[in-house]
Amino acid sequence: MNAVPEPAPAAVREGVLELEQPLPLHFGGRLSHVRIAWRLVGDPAAPVIAVLGGISAGRCVVDNGTEKGWWGEIIGPGRALDSSRYRILGIDFLGGSGGSTGPSTGQVDFPSIASQDQAEVLRRVAEHLKLGSLAAIVGASYGGMVALAFAERWPDRVQRIVVISAAHRAHPMATAWRSVQRAVVRFGAQNGQGTEGLRLARALAMATYRSPTEFEQRFSGPATRVDGRFQFPVESYLLARGDAYAATYIPEAFVCLSESIDLHQVEPSNIQVPTWLVAIIEDQLVPVSDMRQLKQALGGPVHLTELSSLYGHDAFLKETQALREVFTHALSIPGDVK
Amino acid sequence: MNAVPEPAPAAVREGVLELEQPLPLHFGGRLSHVRIAWRLVGDPAAPVIAVLGGISAGRCVVDNGTEKGWWGEIIGPGRALDSSRYRILGIDFLGGSGGSTGPSTGQVDFPSIASQDQAEVLRRVAEHLKLGSLAAIVGASYGGMVALAFAERWPDRVQRIVVISAAHRAHPMATAWRSVQRAVVRFGAQNGQGTEGLRLARALAMATYRSPTEFEQRFSGPATRVDGRFQFPVESYLLARGDAYAATYIPEAFVCLSESIDLHQVEPSNIQVPTWLVAIIEDQLVPVSDMRQLKQALGGPVHLTELSSLYGHDAFLKETQALREVFTHALSIPGDVK
Repeated sequence: MNAVPEPAPAAVREGVLELEQPLPLHFGGRLSHVRIAWRLVGDPAAPVIAVLGGISAGRCVVDNGTEKGWWGEIIGPGRALDSSRYRILGIDFLGGSGGSTGPSTGQVDFPSIASQDQAEVLRRVAEHLKLGSLAAIVGASYGGMVALAFAERWPDRVQRIVVISAAHRAHPMATAWRSVQRAVVRFGAQNGQGTEGLRLARALAMATYRSPTEFEQRFSGPATRVDGRFQFPVESYLLARGDAYAATYIPEAFVCLSESIDLHQVEPSNIQVPTWLVAIIEDQLVPVSDMRQLKQALGGPVHLTELSSLYGHDAFLKETQALREVFTHALSIPGDVK
Repeated sequence: MNAVPEPAPAAVREGVLELEQPLPLHFGGRLSHVRIAWRLVGDPAAPVIAVLGGISAGRCVVDNGTEKGWWGEIIGPGRALDSSRYRILGIDFLGGSGGSTGPSTGQVDFPSIASQDQAEVLRRVAEHLKLGSLAAIVGASYGGMVALAFAERWPDRVQRIVVISAAHRAHPMATAWRSVQRAVVRFGAQNGQGTEGLRLARALAMATYRSPTEFEQRFSGPATRVDGRFQFPVESYLLARGDAYAATYIPEAFVCLSESIDLHQVEPSNIQVPTWLVAIIEDQLVPVSDMRQLKQALGGPVHLTELSSLYGHDAFLKETQALREVFTHALSIPGDVK
């Protein structure tokens, strides 16, 4: 075997932007002492893509030495989105559990945060870093909502957006599932057990991310007796994932960002930035019908790729080959004119 | 206007069968002092149909004077299933919140109950009432599972079964949602708040009964501010339904019957009783693919009707006209031979 030379580690810049003035919020009020944690990885000469994911994702997008990025399977040198050609900007969401301003454990008075507010702090970071107009925003799930909000408000600060599994509004069925998740977290917190509430909420969320077919393939085995009662294979899986999540995330931050998804609303006809949409036919949270509706209503050039994936809403974390094709096209041409 | 004569009230017999011996259970152990509440409505000369519904349904199937039956919209004199031609037998499920033996509030040691156990107590009631072979069992949701279990075990005691939105096993995705519901109820009970846990579990369950399209049509309005935070239209609906449910049902009984759904398993090739299946294409809990698989595997004459309904898993409570056609055919002919 020939030795494969290790690629040189990408240049990493990281920091926290502290806003000097209170931040006016989309739904009213102001937030003081706002801090936004960001990370920028890659060749300083390369064009910048801001990459935003689901509410549990943050500024660590790509793998970095021993540290895994949340989208490291998809974005990296030579990967589906080739990070050797771009600089990748990530931020921690406002209201989340990361390094940006968000509620602390037990804090119930944190204000409601809009996708527009996330777009605003992304703009502030890009200005702070003097990045000019971004080459693209690539957003999946909640991050796709933020990309749409950004494009609606600042068309001259981004050249194109790629929106995966996100639409102009949350679907009421998905809002139903998330409303129950938030109610369970609040119920736990009222009993001094926010972490247990978050565990159960995350277990429920996990049941909405994948397709029924994937669950059927993985979890069709029999129930086993655990501590004197039956436990089902899918139940063990969901609760284990809930445990892992609750060990890391702040219950009140989960509630804040979950609500932000359901409050999301943009006016598609206002969006004229070239847009590449990716819909997953099996997505239980963002039905393909909503993404078709968004495509029809967008005010600028738009292309919609419809993919079939067992992974449902989680497809953006899994479907490497299909996403490679999407990124190849979406990042090189501005989109088809309708 | 001519006066329309009031139909004579149907003859109603009602009682509680007390088993003299402990009842052996499908998953092991015995249950002592078992009581089964039953109701039999209609002309004593008419053939008997046992009618079984979801885990919240019981012996009061048809309207009776001022008292509403849980399937009164569909079954009654001149209705989709014409009760003037049949006697309708209903029971309260074992392990439930009705008049049959079930867990009391706070009781965590009630044994696991199988669909086979429900079939057993139905057989005991039919024997007690000297009904001979039943003309049919019509079962929807959990009741359809019980109908299959009955047909597998006692083919000579029922002439045909009609199974709506139920298959040979629970689908793992539906088990996922129900597992979380049970975990939420247990979490509540551990905090001395089983009723609040049940409220949230029922709210979640309501989000699985209907189709996304129905929710979209009903709940696309904006969030409103309630007690200082946003509340979504679908959230208000789910929690109101959860409140109503938790005021009536026993948390531990809900857990028992919910688990019984997920433990359900029959061997379709053993079932030779003529079977009419009804699948709802939009059903999130019982996918049409499972009912097609059941159809292929059944050992006797079988017909499958596939319906499209906005009401999803709840279609059996709503789709009067389609069910009229189903019952007309299913109750008059024994089914197509494969």
